[in-house]
Amino acid sequence: MNKYVRKNVNRMKGYTPGEQPSDPLIIKLNTNENPYAPSPAVGRALEDFDFTNLGLYPDPLATKLRGMIAAYHGCETCRVLAGNGSDELLALCVRAFVEGRGKIGFFEPSYSLYPVLAEMHGLRAIAVPLGSDFEWAMPDEVDASLFFLANPNAPTGIMYPMEQVRHFCERFPGVVVIDEAYADFAEANCMSLALELENVIVLRTFSKSFSLAGLRLGYAVGAPELVGAMSKLKDSYNVDRIAQTLGCAAFADMDYMRSNCENIKNIRRHTAAELEKRSFRVFPSQANFLWVEPSGIEAAVLFEKLRERNILVRYFPGPRTGRCLRISMGTRAQMDVLLGAVDRILQLK
Amino acid sequence: MNKYVRKNVNRMKGYTPGEQPSDPLIIKLNTNENPYAPSPAVGRALEDFDFTNLGLYPDPLATKLRGMIAAYHGCETCRVLAGNGSDELLALCVRAFVEGRGKIGFFEPSYSLYPVLAEMHGLRAIAVPLGSDFEWAMPDEVDASLFFLANPNAPTGIMYPMEQVRHFCERFPGVVVIDEAYADFAEANCMSLALELENVIVLRTFSKSFSLAGLRLGYAVGAPELVGAMSKLKDSYNVDRIAQTLGCAAFADMDYMRSNCENIKNIRRHTAAELEKRSFRVFPSQANFLWVEPSGIEAAVLFEKLRERNILVRYFPGPRTGRCLRISMGTRAQMDVLLGAVDRILQLK
Repeated sequence: MNKYVRKNVNRMKGYTPGEQPSDPLIIKLNTNENPYAPSPAVGRALEDFDFTNLGLYPDPLATKLRGMIAAYHGCETCRVLAGNGSDELLALCVRAFVEGRGKIGFFEPSYSLYPVLAEMHGLRAIAVPLGSDFEWAMPDEVDASLFFLANPNAPTGIMYPMEQVRHFCERFPGVVVIDEAYADFAEANCMSLALELENVIVLRTFSKSFSLAGLRLGYAVGAPELVGAMSKLKDSYNVDRIAQTLGCAAFADMDYMRSNCENIKNIRRHTAAELEKRSFRVFPSQANFLWVEPSGIEAAVLFEKLRERNILVRYFPGPRTGRCLRISMGTRAQMDVLLGAVDRILQLK
Repeated sequence: MNKYVRKNVNRMKGYTPGEQPSDPLIIKLNTNENPYAPSPAVGRALEDFDFTNLGLYPDPLATKLRGMIAAYHGCETCRVLAGNGSDELLALCVRAFVEGRGKIGFFEPSYSLYPVLAEMHGLRAIAVPLGSDFEWAMPDEVDASLFFLANPNAPTGIMYPMEQVRHFCERFPGVVVIDEAYADFAEANCMSLALELENVIVLRTFSKSFSLAGLRLGYAVGAPELVGAMSKLKDSYNVDRIAQTLGCAAFADMDYMRSNCENIKNIRRHTAAELEKRSFRVFPSQANFLWVEPSGIEAAVLFEKLRERNILVRYFPGPRTGRCLRISMGTRAQMDVLLGAVDRILQLK
């Protein structure tokens, strides 16, 4: 306890990001990064970037980047906000849409940052349990002014039925933030809801499908009044000059992004089939990771044994999540190393 | 009014950053940028940066950069927090140190973001008027839990007496955030207070003396418990990979930064002397800008007439500030263009 620090901040533990070891020998399948490089167009834009311009502030409105994003989604630029990663945009949603005594809803399990965001702002968290197989299970009423809906969900990779999502958004009295970090790996998405409904924000990120987690770039799309409120609260120059430039280069090369995602989806199919051969339960994933329940070994033990072999996956302790592991999709070669390690750990071969 | 948006956010107007025109013909003396390029070491670090690493998240703790900063100031790394520009760190101070019904103090006039930060968080702002010549004028008691103290002050450039600042910090019941954005252009600074007192945070930025406004990088130094509280509230990956790398390169080349600042101080002396010759009142500046009261023309009129000539300076309307202009220091050549324009506007030559 420190007397200068807010009580709720004193109390809170904070968010624990997945480990970020720098050892290149480690196979990192723990934070849903993309194993492929960003588009070569990003490399060229970086090469062409004139560092002497870094003395000048960036465009506070990221006009060019937002214009490209708006054109892609077929909407006006005023419906788009760029952020220093989706994390910034999630926090802005809390500060824009939830009064001091308000509540934030989200499914349980879902992205573990959501309850931390509530805690940070001294707000009540309303955790709505998913069904027994992590499927959509929304009660008729949720008493909250903001609902964070990751779709596809993390850590499960499960995509919710579009009609259920739409029905919920139409009925929910507050703002629904559909966190579509993994949408480019999925068969469908909810962007149309952000363009139609006055209470829906869709978030996208450059971290996953564009292979740019290290750059910190995300965007929000929604009703101009919601986006405008978030924009009033953002740091004036929240997206730096290099991120704006490289973001434009990445976004202009949609073909590369799509083929990158197709690769990941093929690897996902291959890995899922191989793990099922080993009797693992593999939940249906529409993301760049798999949520699996190991067979013949406890999840926590497999996590540790993989770790000893320099393979990092993600384990979330707890009654709902503790029997599963989340495995990010690496390259085909990395996944074969993982499968070989699983075999040796289980003494299958 | 939008029913989904927080009442205080609906009401607020937001912060107005200085204009960021992209026309290279415009002489930009309006947002206190540094007219010189960053260190060549920054250019080399950018050239050497391998864009294929951008797929991986950055170090959430910016360990290397914070270590360099800590070593420079002679303190432990746990006393240093890196941010996406000082703006992020200012906002984190509000969220870490002010309860929901708390108050934020600052001098008037000072950095115009401070009252906006209070408004954003639905908090009360306590504006303490400076003396008639914008000098230190702190009452015996200020009823607030956070005080933002820009030193040297903006938009005046005036540096407060160290003993007054120390005395205030020792007595103030909350946290004092000393915003030292311009300290590298000054004869002294208050870093020692952040290392000695348990209620002081000093903020520094790479935007001004390191010529890196476009990169978004700043840092906070203070008691480990205060810095730890801010750290819990930051976005997990708030400083991107490129900013961490280029920040290290810039910080390692202190000689360049110092000689850059010496140049700016010489230009400041020259410009001040020239404006005084034209009977302008020039306030004593320890920053990279001058706060001047024009003679023979109203500040607002001079602002507009300079603007017509593609020279942007900053005009802050209002009873305290409306008779002055803030002029950022450009290159010697840019300042000579400014002085020539002033002469023609005033028909002195």
